[in-house]
Amino acid sequence: MALINENYTKLPSNYLFKEIARKLNVYKATRPNANLVRLDSGDSINIAKGNVAESLFNAVSAMAEYRIAEKLPVEELTKSLKSRILKVDYESYGVSRLTIDEIFLSNNAMNITSDVCDMFSNDNVLAFLDPSYPAYIYSAVMAGRSGEKRSDGRWSNFVYVPCDWTNGFLPNVPKEHCDVIYLNLPHNPTGAVFTHDKLKEWVKYASAHNAIIIYDASHSHYITEENVPHSIYEIRGAKKVAVEIRSFSKTTGFTGTNFAYLTIPKELSALSFDNEEISLNSIWQRRQITTFSGIPYLTLCSADALYSEEGVAERNKLVSYYMANAQLIRNTLGKLGFKVQGGVNSPYVWVKVPSHTGSWNFFERLLYEANIVCSPGVGFCPGGEGSVRFTGFASREETEEAMNRLKKWHV
Amino acid sequence: MALINENYTKLPSNYLFKEIARKLNVYKATRPNANLVRLDSGDSINIAKGNVAESLFNAVSAMAEYRIAEKLPVEELTKSLKSRILKVDYESYGVSRLTIDEIFLSNNAMNITSDVCDMFSNDNVLAFLDPSYPAYIYSAVMAGRSGEKRSDGRWSNFVYVPCDWTNGFLPNVPKEHCDVIYLNLPHNPTGAVFTHDKLKEWVKYASAHNAIIIYDASHSHYITEENVPHSIYEIRGAKKVAVEIRSFSKTTGFTGTNFAYLTIPKELSALSFDNEEISLNSIWQRRQITTFSGIPYLTLCSADALYSEEGVAERNKLVSYYMANAQLIRNTLGKLGFKVQGGVNSPYVWVKVPSHTGSWNFFERLLYEANIVCSPGVGFCPGGEGSVRFTGFASREETEEAMNRLKKWHV
Repeated sequence: MALINENYTKLPSNYLFKEIARKLNVYKATRPNANLVRLDSGDSINIAKGNVAESLFNAVSAMAEYRIAEKLPVEELTKSLKSRILKVDYESYGVSRLTIDEIFLSNNAMNITSDVCDMFSNDNVLAFLDPSYPAYIYSAVMAGRSGEKRSDGRWSNFVYVPCDWTNGFLPNVPKEHCDVIYLNLPHNPTGAVFTHDKLKEWVKYASAHNAIIIYDASHSHYITEENVPHSIYEIRGAKKVAVEIRSFSKTTGFTGTNFAYLTIPKELSALSFDNEEISLNSIWQRRQITTFSGIPYLTLCSADALYSEEGVAERNKLVSYYMANAQLIRNTLGKLGFKVQGGVNSPYVWVKVPSHTGSWNFFERLLYEANIVCSPGVGFCPGGEGSVRFTGFASREETEEAMNRLKKWHV
Repeated sequence: MALINENYTKLPSNYLFKEIARKLNVYKATRPNANLVRLDSGDSINIAKGNVAESLFNAVSAMAEYRIAEKLPVEELTKSLKSRILKVDYESYGVSRLTIDEIFLSNNAMNITSDVCDMFSNDNVLAFLDPSYPAYIYSAVMAGRSGEKRSDGRWSNFVYVPCDWTNGFLPNVPKEHCDVIYLNLPHNPTGAVFTHDKLKEWVKYASAHNAIIIYDASHSHYITEENVPHSIYEIRGAKKVAVEIRSFSKTTGFTGTNFAYLTIPKELSALSFDNEEISLNSIWQRRQITTFSGIPYLTLCSADALYSEEGVAERNKLVSYYMANAQLIRNTLGKLGFKVQGGVNSPYVWVKVPSHTGSWNFFERLLYEANIVCSPGVGFCPGGEGSVRFTGFASREETEEAMNRLKKWHV
């Protein structure tokens, strides 16, 4: 009989978001008329209006006209979009000398984070912030990189770098040697950011250890403070040590159309067993042409619109809206005496729950006593235990309603 | 320095479709006004009109309205779509007792074909038809399953089953033991199909060897003959040995919106090292909830429309259109004395080129002397040498023009 990939059997069956859904079903079964406010959503759900929607309408029309698709300027549109990306996401932050050949378009940031790591041998040591976005870790588990799960819930082959209340969410570089480091900044779930100086330490570590940083900057549009880099390439030398991932599911509702990209500078390389330095850009390009059929035309059109001046303005409006929600959550919880983190450069607010209260326990109390849904921190790695995550992605009215309930609940 | 995944370095840099594009650029550089007819396209480029386009318009409108996304009936729509799939793709061909839990929606058939194989240990022996759709093979190369490339262009660890002029495109089951078998029927690139009886032999082989068949039925909507199964599950016992893949890029232009699905019957299992039988359905479900964020809302809406009565009728219209092109190609080339295959249950026509003419050589002659683009067979695996592929995806006018040129060229 065909043998199964044993690594797949290591995956948990009670993944965080599935488990939340299960608990909500139990709740709703006994309270069918309950009016829950959900502050657990990890995705924005609006597409930018105006020219993005218009561009989608036009693209659908073009595709619905017989044979017109043949003349669709896919190649030109791809170049236009990549040039806009360079301008909006990089040049405006002082990152120059990247070219369109260093940008790889993709359907889905979630796929990129796991696929990109496939470029590296399983002999590499992987490091993650703790807590962390769980899909990074599970994709590495499936790829056979994890070793065994220890009794504390961490995997034996991974290096975990705490990013928590003990170090003010400004973790130092690992003491041990690592080869591939996942950094997700602004950080999901804690909303933490690195200053320029802090990120410099990590780039320096990667240079010294010849390590590669997989830098997920999908939340960079939320940054408001001046000394926080939007791209890792703002740090000198980073092009030699980092790939960067961006997506829109966190700002402009691209969960609906799916668009993301991966930047791989040409000067970035990794080592073959023969000690040859191999360009990751050329390796990825080879992978793409053999297995990737391109992003859908509709996505191409809407992403291009999103990078126009009007699109960027629309995006900024949405970002401000979500950030006002996050600030409201942060301020309310702070006034109620909770320790809070995030909500300044991120739509996430990370909240310390009363000591001796587990994060699932707090989740349940909040659900049943105040009818509010948050995300238990432990679901984001063992290091998230003792905290919960609130997000700014609900409507203003819902967020205000939730805060009123919190005030009453906490009395 | 981080170590590279050595398997990635085995990928060719001159992948078929990239190489065709390169040769066309050379051609166009010297003949900027040339009027080429392209009969090499592997994708249909039309979306069904009528309710599919309408459904996309409505979905864009819904997403453009503020906050409406929250109320979008994603769960209901997913159930509706899966129920329609069961009815249209399975029940109407006599395949019963599949449930919606056995259907996994996805963005992209290309990803499924490689991801699904990830469920299996690298200790399994893989088998492919030869020629074959190249992405199957390259994804297995990247996953480290291939061994080394032999001088004949084949990989040492794979079993190649000829599907060619020598066996009338009705290959017998392998003589050796295989664990995972890729079958793509109707076959890309040759347009071959298996009759019920032939497919039965393969299912019987898989049962006897406890092997898994990865059955890519993405072209099944093109089947016109009665004794050709549309789904492998029409064969008794196949639910215990096969997963099935479907997509729309080959019929209704879903290259523009990207939709595919994977069927994994609950009775299908593979073996752990401890000799435990593990349900592939549950393993895949676990994988999906940890790493897949769902197909985009726009795709969900358009796919659902495509499975409505009106959508199916639109699809059939498109299929008839492409098939008339394919028949025209088949008949013309046949009358000109070429040996032809396909074009009856498939939009592909596979043509034997004159002996002692390589398929790239024929491609170049056709390009420079008749201004027609085909796909050289050798690009689809070594077994494709000596043949080329024509597709029915151009317009009727273009196809007719190409056939007139062929007649003149061949005189």
